[in-house]
Amino acid sequence: MTIKDIARECGVSISTVSRVLNGRPDVREEVRQRVLSCMQRHNYIPNNTARDLVKTSSDTVGLVVRGVSNPFYANIIKTIQQEIDLAGYTLVMQQIHSGEDEIKCGAIMEREKKLRGVIFLGGRSDYTDAEIALVNVPFVCCSYTNSYGNLSANRYSSVSIEDEETAFRAVEALYHMGHRRIAALISEKDDRSVSELRYGGYLRALKTYGVEQDDDLVVCAGNYDMPGAYHAVRELLQREKEFTALFCISDSMAIAAMRALKDGGVSVPESCSVFSIDGLEMAEYTDPRLTTLSQPTELMGQESVRTLLGLIEGNSAHKQVIVQAALKAGGSVRPI
Amino acid sequence: MTIKDIARECGVSISTVSRVLNGRPDVREEVRQRVLSCMQRHNYIPNNTARDLVKTSSDTVGLVVRGVSNPFYANIIKTIQQEIDLAGYTLVMQQIHSGEDEIKCGAIMEREKKLRGVIFLGGRSDYTDAEIALVNVPFVCCSYTNSYGNLSANRYSSVSIEDEETAFRAVEALYHMGHRRIAALISEKDDRSVSELRYGGYLRALKTYGVEQDDDLVVCAGNYDMPGAYHAVRELLQREKEFTALFCISDSMAIAAMRALKDGGVSVPESCSVFSIDGLEMAEYTDPRLTTLSQPTELMGQESVRTLLGLIEGNSAHKQVIVQAALKAGGSVRPI
Repeated sequence: MTIKDIARECGVSISTVSRVLNGRPDVREEVRQRVLSCMQRHNYIPNNTARDLVKTSSDTVGLVVRGVSNPFYANIIKTIQQEIDLAGYTLVMQQIHSGEDEIKCGAIMEREKKLRGVIFLGGRSDYTDAEIALVNVPFVCCSYTNSYGNLSANRYSSVSIEDEETAFRAVEALYHMGHRRIAALISEKDDRSVSELRYGGYLRALKTYGVEQDDDLVVCAGNYDMPGAYHAVRELLQREKEFTALFCISDSMAIAAMRALKDGGVSVPESCSVFSIDGLEMAEYTDPRLTTLSQPTELMGQESVRTLLGLIEGNSAHKQVIVQAALKAGGSVRPI
Repeated sequence: MTIKDIARECGVSISTVSRVLNGRPDVREEVRQRVLSCMQRHNYIPNNTARDLVKTSSDTVGLVVRGVSNPFYANIIKTIQQEIDLAGYTLVMQQIHSGEDEIKCGAIMEREKKLRGVIFLGGRSDYTDAEIALVNVPFVCCSYTNSYGNLSANRYSSVSIEDEETAFRAVEALYHMGHRRIAALISEKDDRSVSELRYGGYLRALKTYGVEQDDDLVVCAGNYDMPGAYHAVRELLQREKEFTALFCISDSMAIAAMRALKDGGVSVPESCSVFSIDGLEMAEYTDPRLTTLSQPTELMGQESVRTLLGLIEGNSAHKQVIVQAALKAGGSVRPI
């Protein structure tokens, strides 16, 4: 009696039998029972050597951070680490650049470190079934979700704000303050990720309020870094197009943008309002303080760990958790 | 039956069999299956001793970060992680508050995670032999050294700037710009750590140049956080003592201090120059840009890993590496 025979008799795939053997959560209860009773009936004894080969070491969880030294992640990483420790697991972290492939990195880590699960902190929002099949353990997307993909809701887990809607709210707020010439500082228009989503919210807000969209008011930094943001805004100023407000897709980019505006002779908020998204601690100390829609980072870290451990321990199903961004009013915006 | 026999029977190389045994992803699925079923057929039991040599438990290095979410550490952590990965080890990180005991944390981690070595990022500078005896594996102190302790040089390793001397240089520079009433923002006067060392450099500079030291010009934040620094400087302003410059022991504290000065109606650098130590990327974007003595964080991360691996692999002895801070001139200081 082999695993193949069990699979044939139960009418399931070999990998399903293997998942049952390894106590994986992604097997329907009815199927699990059918496989287990078939094994009992035949006194099937799993080949332990073979099982050990594919078994994960017992307590390691991976964290893949995409976007090296993004200060927005600091508080989430701290929370994830604390929660993983409290739960008795070990966290192994890997940081990659925002251009790298987090799924591939997670898949390699999973095998090398024998992970029980992975949290992806930052990533693309357009995964396919084939792509995520690379990762053989439960995973949670933290700070993003499958907005552009076609994964069914019972195939993946995520914890995030509604990026498009949050950007819409920021630009809407600028509109209500009287701004009509609203520029945007983004990373890329089509990165299938946070930048594209927040850019989408910007476009929808302009459209909703009947504001003509001007491509000359949109600058792409090409990345999420501060030097990139700084140079993009310097370039925006060189276009000599009038604008009274600048929407930035992240706080760290907004801080670099305020520096670029100042260096270009534009005072914030007198000549240009700046509004962004994230809620960095540092943004409370800049001059002027940044007005931003703040993400609940501690809650996001906690929910990510809770969701992942539920999946690992088999007592909960995939879910997409949406959290709310809250306004932190600074001094970087003014009504006109 | 040995790994050699398996390889021969499957028509693959020994290293391919080894990769399958170690769950590595770089093996074609068809080859993996062939190898696994050959093993099952022969009830092959991998030689555990040999496997353990390459298994995760024996290749783990710990990183204890003291001072949760200190932005100065971000670049060092990134570098340490990259270098550890490159060397084929696994990094496990733990973050603790600046009041917690890093040695105790490292000692517990060492046992729980079966570490090969530990890097302490931030810590006290007064270890005793009895204290470090808790840690049974090689360790390196990164960003601090045993300034107040009595460990002999062949008992510990460290990578750091000369904190006292660097603070001396900062205050000396303010003196040469004409400042005589120089305030100091520190964490504590006697924390046996970075704050006490840099405060010592401040005191020595005043003494060297014959400037009278005024205790009313020294404020202790009690920690290294931005809110603590902000409130300390607001308190300093309430004392209504005249000062024309403020020396800060860290960039993040200096950024909070500039905010507090501004909120108290004191403009930087017109009414007060601000000079600090660290070299955060963020400090290049504040208004004004911060003038600071910048630590070579990438080099510090690299040297820490190199030193630790030398100790682990037994091909080098303990050493104390001193690196140099370099001036990053901003706009937060002016001659008077």
